[in-house]
Amino acid sequence: MDDAAQQEPSPPLAGMRVIELSSFVASPLGGMTLAQLGADVIRIDQVGGGPDIGRWPLAPSGHSLYWAGLNKGKRSVTVDLRSPEGRRIVARLVAGSGEDGGIVLTNAAPRGGLAYDDLRAARPDLIHLRLLGHRDGRNAVDYTVNAELGFPYLTGPESHDGPVNHVLPVWDVACGLYLATGLLAAERHRARTGEGRRIEVALYDVALATAGNLGYLAEAQLCDTPRPRLGNHLFGDFGRDFATADGEPVMVVVLTGRHWRDLLAATGLGEVAAALERAFGADFGRAADRYRHREALGGVMAPWFASRTRAEIERDLGDASVLVARYGDLAGLTRDDAAALRSSPLMDVLDQPGAGRHLAPGPPLVFDGRQVPPRPAPVLGEHTGEVLRELLSLSPGEVDDLRARGVAGEPAGPAPEAGRTAAEAGRAGGR
Amino acid sequence: MDDAAQQEPSPPLAGMRVIELSSFVASPLGGMTLAQLGADVIRIDQVGGGPDIGRWPLAPSGHSLYWAGLNKGKRSVTVDLRSPEGRRIVARLVAGSGEDGGIVLTNAAPRGGLAYDDLRAARPDLIHLRLLGHRDGRNAVDYTVNAELGFPYLTGPESHDGPVNHVLPVWDVACGLYLATGLLAAERHRARTGEGRRIEVALYDVALATAGNLGYLAEAQLCDTPRPRLGNHLFGDFGRDFATADGEPVMVVVLTGRHWRDLLAATGLGEVAAALERAFGADFGRAADRYRHREALGGVMAPWFASRTRAEIERDLGDASVLVARYGDLAGLTRDDAAALRSSPLMDVLDQPGAGRHLAPGPPLVFDGRQVPPRPAPVLGEHTGEVLRELLSLSPGEVDDLRARGVAGEPAGPAPEAGRTAAEAGRAGGR
Repeated sequence: MDDAAQQEPSPPLAGMRVIELSSFVASPLGGMTLAQLGADVIRIDQVGGGPDIGRWPLAPSGHSLYWAGLNKGKRSVTVDLRSPEGRRIVARLVAGSGEDGGIVLTNAAPRGGLAYDDLRAARPDLIHLRLLGHRDGRNAVDYTVNAELGFPYLTGPESHDGPVNHVLPVWDVACGLYLATGLLAAERHRARTGEGRRIEVALYDVALATAGNLGYLAEAQLCDTPRPRLGNHLFGDFGRDFATADGEPVMVVVLTGRHWRDLLAATGLGEVAAALERAFGADFGRAADRYRHREALGGVMAPWFASRTRAEIERDLGDASVLVARYGDLAGLTRDDAAALRSSPLMDVLDQPGAGRHLAPGPPLVFDGRQVPPRPAPVLGEHTGEVLRELLSLSPGEVDDLRARGVAGEPAGPAPEAGRTAAEAGRAGGR
Repeated sequence: MDDAAQQEPSPPLAGMRVIELSSFVASPLGGMTLAQLGADVIRIDQVGGGPDIGRWPLAPSGHSLYWAGLNKGKRSVTVDLRSPEGRRIVARLVAGSGEDGGIVLTNAAPRGGLAYDDLRAARPDLIHLRLLGHRDGRNAVDYTVNAELGFPYLTGPESHDGPVNHVLPVWDVACGLYLATGLLAAERHRARTGEGRRIEVALYDVALATAGNLGYLAEAQLCDTPRPRLGNHLFGDFGRDFATADGEPVMVVVLTGRHWRDLLAATGLGEVAAALERAFGADFGRAADRYRHREALGGVMAPWFASRTRAEIERDLGDASVLVARYGDLAGLTRDDAAALRSSPLMDVLDQPGAGRHLAPGPPLVFDGRQVPPRPAPVLGEHTGEVLRELLSLSPGEVDDLRARGVAGEPAGPAPEAGRTAAEAGRAGGR
């Protein structure tokens, strides 16, 4: 062991083993978050892949970049989940691994032998997390939940009539992180008491809880005036986009009195604002008044922004506390050999089997200043033999027999050339 | 102890104590998530409140529903953070509480005596989580990070030119849940090794990591064609909104071949779809072809939806696997005495001091089938005396002296009448 390795503390979830039966975003993201913190997360799929194996976006090679992105750092096992023998293998994987095992993360409908009660019978301290659409079992996905909650009528230009969907599956992302949180909370409880827990999270509940936590639901219940569609305005303070001299709009956000004073000082509009305060009987030191008079204030400021390039705006507001950002685009992040991405310590070159080399994010949770580099997603079924030998003590011949009968799968694609990240291979060379 | 109390398992984070120095969404949401799982989360604020104390939306009484929503179930302590004596009190709260203490969650710039190194000197096993805007310390908030990443150019009607901001602070929400996850992972590590950890999370990194995890960044690097603005279409499969006979649009999502077959069967458009497949050389059993021909397929289906009311659509698609949802609105959830909210097991009546009684969400993580009801947010400073007496063993006279000198604060508003939820008071009567 060399010096660097000795200094490296073990990852926080070292030893934990999670059996994941999942697909699409939320449940895989929950598992990946744990894998990035050091857990051994084994994703189980039907031989040939789950319903998300080909989900867009795709690499030019046809490999799913979505699947690769959401399963980084896991091991992949494929079995025939339609056969009782395949399901028995999964149940044995769940039951094993001693005090670090017995943890299941799933968004799949339970199949015979893999229902909670079946698994718990073999493992009384089972920790079982299940993601549902609605709590009563009805199906739902991010885009239907978002429609139901009503956010599409609050999103988009003020002049627009119909609903505007979000493009990011935000409820899926939140759900995945709730699953990771819930799993760790349950594991803490088990470590202290020996008791397992059954945890359920519904996508709709996560959206409803978030709407409540942010005050939307209480506002709708207690206030007579419904919240209007606000276009690009910030609700409850002064924030909006401004056009600039070089056609690159900026987003400006004021959230405190200091932000506001700094913005007035930088734009030289203090006297105009004071006159407006007298005219309106307003106090722009207060967020409420900045919000109420957002149209007037925005109109007064628009010429200052419109007469400057983005670079000039950034220069002139450089020392101000007010928040300013350009509107970027994904193409811009990857322009010029992805200079913007390469400049982020979060990103590292990943050699993703099938998809090719690209910059991918490590975990955004940075422990003790050490950015963990991303690890590739497995090839579907890549670790089937390894896991069956290691965890179930099957012999190579027994694994071959399971494969010959279609109960266990083969790796479905090209084997990773080295399974190493660019960082491991030498960071300088990799970027 | 009665039977019910004996059956109730202890909450999973029982005993854990978190000192929170935070404001706005992400860090408070992280703390609240832990409080909902049973941790004792003590939010420390400047006497008079932090920058988010009056953040909109407000109740008719003027109390912030945002602050109340994001601080449910915590204890509130106010001290003068500008005075060394006030900061020493906070440092002592962090250092105390034995093996369950020594945990800090913050998005505040470190002040003298409260920087990581100061706190760690007194508590070598400190777990310290800090939320940043950018990793290099530059400020950022949800709305500026979202602009930088470029999602506003992918959101909104296809005919729209400029950026379209999201209304939900999605990066804040994700960040708060990453903070909860990271804290629990670090605490697991400490329980096993005795070692503390310093964890940093940047809002921008969370957004960038999410864009990477969902495949957006890899797509932009590897594919020549940038992803277009898609309006209300789902990327990579068939999903969109449809107008209906009664003016209530619905969102329809197909994600698997079975969804598609069921949609064709229910709408009776199988023969048309087959003819289109022959005309286009397409296979609508494949997501890629459903996506490529989304305009034609949507056009073909629109009359079926337009000639039916929403209720008829739900009836006719009732047994189909395809996902369908109405576009609701927040007012609809609270119409008819909030019948829709009352029907959700997640929601319960909360008597929030200052704001008034309303339905609020409990935690969406449901352990062993028991929905924990929401607990009110504290009144600002409500627990100052209690916490100083309990954790620092100060006498009532010492607390009075700190208050008289302005080092510690008084409760800032009406004390809660009972601090009980409707569920505790008798669920039937409360709803």
